[in-house]
Amino acid sequence: MAPLYTFAGGDAGSWRVTRQGTYRGQGLAPVKRVAVRPGVEAGPSGALWTLTGVVSNVRYATAAELKALATKQEGLGRPEAKCAALIPIKKSQRWWSLAQDERRRIFEETSHHNAIGMDYLPAIARRLHHCRDLGGDFDFLTWFEYAPNHADAFEELVVRLRRSPEWEYVEREVDLRLERN
Amino acid sequence: MAPLYTFAGGDAGSWRVTRQGTYRGQGLAPVKRVAVRPGVEAGPSGALWTLTGVVSNVRYATAAELKALATKQEGLGRPEAKCAALIPIKKSQRWWSLAQDERRRIFEETSHHNAIGMDYLPAIARRLHHCRDLGGDFDFLTWFEYAPNHADAFEELVVRLRRSPEWEYVEREVDLRLERN
Repeated sequence: MAPLYTFAGGDAGSWRVTRQGTYRGQGLAPVKRVAVRPGVEAGPSGALWTLTGVVSNVRYATAAELKALATKQEGLGRPEAKCAALIPIKKSQRWWSLAQDERRRIFEETSHHNAIGMDYLPAIARRLHHCRDLGGDFDFLTWFEYAPNHADAFEELVVRLRRSPEWEYVEREVDLRLERN
Repeated sequence: MAPLYTFAGGDAGSWRVTRQGTYRGQGLAPVKRVAVRPGVEAGPSGALWTLTGVVSNVRYATAAELKALATKQEGLGRPEAKCAALIPIKKSQRWWSLAQDERRRIFEETSHHNAIGMDYLPAIARRLHHCRDLGGDFDFLTWFEYAPNHADAFEELVVRLRRSPEWEYVEREVDLRLERN
């Protein structure tokens, strides 16, 4: 079974929120901390929201792209990666109604989503969680980890992605920055 | 939110099981009837199993393929379509580890999955439910409806798909034929 993770926002958890904003659409209740746990759970007591997503099969990446990623990317949990970002995203119905080749073209050939991410490897590690099919309020929960000296690079990555044609299909996006305890 | 459907096998429901078999892997407990309901629910009392899936975005079809399908296919619930088939399928980890272009190539360029289905339109109507990301025992629940005089054509469709290279990645497949009350 594909692994699930739950992000619970509240007063508890090993990630302290340093900034919480909303890039587009409705925000999430402001929280002080986020707990990240495997599986589906209600979250620690006092959680104001919980978001669950599943690490699923790749939807757009080609074999060549996966191979290139594998040679450059590093995993989560590196001791120096004391910074993180949690960016829940919901795309429009118009996006989801597109055929596979149309979404792929926008994702990579036009917006260079994977190519842009490659520019920031291995500094920025990433895990994508899918939640549209789980019936959540978001379609994706993206989680990034990086060292403090790469914080500016991370902000640049976010700006570049948001400028891409793919982002015309984003209708809700919340944005949290965090630091490990 | 993407629509969910639950198939409950037991003694109740408007579809009577005329044949229940297992094509590959572990079977399901034999049942007399199947109830098909929107949403997630426990099923009628006496249900021996329930399977829930979500009607999600297309994973492989191109815009040209979707357009061709739209001109030929008909919906579920046609009065003459008194026959149905429920075929829950689970693919192997090897399939899910493939890149998107590799899975697409096997699905269509090698196995002609969509093209084979097109040969039986509009006679055979179909709805695909995804359940891998929901953590179910299967990855897909495929549901077909057709008139009794197309029953032989349906069996041919099933045989052609099972002969395709894509089916080397199927590790569990249960097969039920049903008739509407």
